[in-house]
Amino acid sequence: MNVNGRHYRTIWLNEDGWAVDIIDQTRFPHLFETVTLRTPEEAAVAIKDMLVRGAPLIGVTAAYGLALAMRQDGSDDALKGAYDLLVKTRPTAINLKWALDEMMRVLKPLAPGERRAAAYARAAQIADEDVAINQAIGRNGHGIIARIAAAKKPGETINVLTHCNAGWLATVDWGTATAPIYTAHDAGLPVHVWVDETRPRNQGASLTAWELLHHGVPHTVIPDNTGGHLMQHGMVDLVIVGTDRTTAQGDVCNKIGTYLKALAAHDNGVPFYVALPSPTIDFEVVDGVKEIPIEQRGGHEVSHMTGRTEDGRIETVEITPRGSRVANYAFDVTPARYVTGLITERGVIAANRAAIAAAFPERALQAAQ
Amino acid sequence: MNVNGRHYRTIWLNEDGWAVDIIDQTRFPHLFETVTLRTPEEAAVAIKDMLVRGAPLIGVTAAYGLALAMRQDGSDDALKGAYDLLVKTRPTAINLKWALDEMMRVLKPLAPGERRAAAYARAAQIADEDVAINQAIGRNGHGIIARIAAAKKPGETINVLTHCNAGWLATVDWGTATAPIYTAHDAGLPVHVWVDETRPRNQGASLTAWELLHHGVPHTVIPDNTGGHLMQHGMVDLVIVGTDRTTAQGDVCNKIGTYLKALAAHDNGVPFYVALPSPTIDFEVVDGVKEIPIEQRGGHEVSHMTGRTEDGRIETVEITPRGSRVANYAFDVTPARYVTGLITERGVIAANRAAIAAAFPERALQAAQ
Repeated sequence: MNVNGRHYRTIWLNEDGWAVDIIDQTRFPHLFETVTLRTPEEAAVAIKDMLVRGAPLIGVTAAYGLALAMRQDGSDDALKGAYDLLVKTRPTAINLKWALDEMMRVLKPLAPGERRAAAYARAAQIADEDVAINQAIGRNGHGIIARIAAAKKPGETINVLTHCNAGWLATVDWGTATAPIYTAHDAGLPVHVWVDETRPRNQGASLTAWELLHHGVPHTVIPDNTGGHLMQHGMVDLVIVGTDRTTAQGDVCNKIGTYLKALAAHDNGVPFYVALPSPTIDFEVVDGVKEIPIEQRGGHEVSHMTGRTEDGRIETVEITPRGSRVANYAFDVTPARYVTGLITERGVIAANRAAIAAAFPERALQAAQ
Repeated sequence: MNVNGRHYRTIWLNEDGWAVDIIDQTRFPHLFETVTLRTPEEAAVAIKDMLVRGAPLIGVTAAYGLALAMRQDGSDDALKGAYDLLVKTRPTAINLKWALDEMMRVLKPLAPGERRAAAYARAAQIADEDVAINQAIGRNGHGIIARIAAAKKPGETINVLTHCNAGWLATVDWGTATAPIYTAHDAGLPVHVWVDETRPRNQGASLTAWELLHHGVPHTVIPDNTGGHLMQHGMVDLVIVGTDRTTAQGDVCNKIGTYLKALAAHDNGVPFYVALPSPTIDFEVVDGVKEIPIEQRGGHEVSHMTGRTEDGRIETVEITPRGSRVANYAFDVTPARYVTGLITERGVIAANRAAIAAAFPERALQAAQ
């Protein structure tokens, strides 16, 4: 999407034709800086230190990490070494392992001298596939927004609420939850986005707001507490969120707090949609609340906050009393009964077992075996 | 309650016998400082700038503000001028107007020369009445906690979730939502409190956590997004919140985000109680969602965050991108159907019109006239 009027992806080949450029996402929302990765080790650090984040982007960065390794040395040892290095960087991200396994499937049978070109080609394909999936999600979600717009007066604002950042910064381009928003906005629909700040890591306030600002989409950052009130007063037309993992029956694991917004949407008759690329569906898991283990992260993310001081320094401040315990559960699970629909690359499908299996029969079948 | 091992109220007469001392609550949680008010203007600023906050404490501060005015000048003009100044300071808090009207009821019939002593006496009474009410709320709420404890194994923790600060810092002493917690804790029940951080002003992280820490009550600060997840996993036994205004039919206006916790409690069968002194009930209002105007506060509270740097300075940092709009709705309304009960000074009553009118017949009757 656009940054300072120029189109960017989150990862691209450097003009030298072999190094890999990324946006340093640890500097948001106050600084926009790009970083060049020249070795698999640098790619590993970029993933581990969260210069790149978001499951799809992590996968593509890892794939390019293998390409950088093959440029140095196409041997079996180098391939295995780079794989082992990269697969350990974020052990919970499912796309990371998927992308690395896919690269291995392509590279392993080849002669060492053939691996470099093949690695760059497949990494580029994986990136393009992500963009294509998100564009399809955008088209399908645009249909929902366009129907809501059609029921309003011409020119009347369509208010979308989103939580966390399932934006283009988490993918290669377009994002998942944001793809319908960008698509509708680019098509001229008067979309306005309520951006949940998304404590404790503030991905909404720092990433989603930044994205929308640069692409020119009207938006308002709100504390996570606000959405229920807005829905009670007819100020939200629909909710679109992303997901880290959705179960076979349509339970949605996403950033902590998503469940509360789903409850409010349900209570107020506001449609609640989840945008997801189908690899995010985990057919091995059925009951999300019971079966999905929820990561607990460091308390520092809750007790401290980083931002820009009036004189432009980036500073971290402590916001809880010293001596008070804090807890930091990273995700929650929204039961399928509160999900209006899943916006996938194959269309908008109902959040239930039969509909999901019917839309992705090959995956459901594979899981059943 | 206790601070550094010594008992405090939130407002008390200065040792000079006429000025009014308060705790500067804008400095929490890192600094504990008291401020002396000497004029009605200073009392108005203390309310407006939230050095004091919480409906009961605002009411008492306003009452003392009138006393400070009467000390300067007991005339009708001075009385009316101070009333008009103080009543405008915060639009939503009903206790403010109640306390000022009560002071006017006492002072207006008196000769100017009699007003000063009468004003101080009535303000002190209002403060003592608040303490007595909160102690009664504490006893009544303690009954609920004790019954939950009785259903558990001996010594097993009782987990209470609270939102914002309806603590002793919001009242003269004991608090409303915290009174049952302090009472149960002081009686030896193993209470643990989940403290919602309560964005954007962080009253939970900065005030409630500070209170509980100083009084020695085990507690954990959590982002506002977390409560739903905890309730899904049986980690919350009950919710107790305060209220700024409760309607004749039991709709509860309280800090933004309360409604979301009520929805989650309802969805998970967790009892959701509202602790309130009866002056908080507004018999003139019935449908809270439709009738209560919600204050919108400055965006700076959302876009900026204040805390302590590692080297001990208090610093404010900006956390949203410059150029992004922010919104700051201060309260929301929880419909009565999600409220398990109202913990009042006259007992725990159901959140419906008949039960509320039966518990406070004199108020209901007055409103009907």
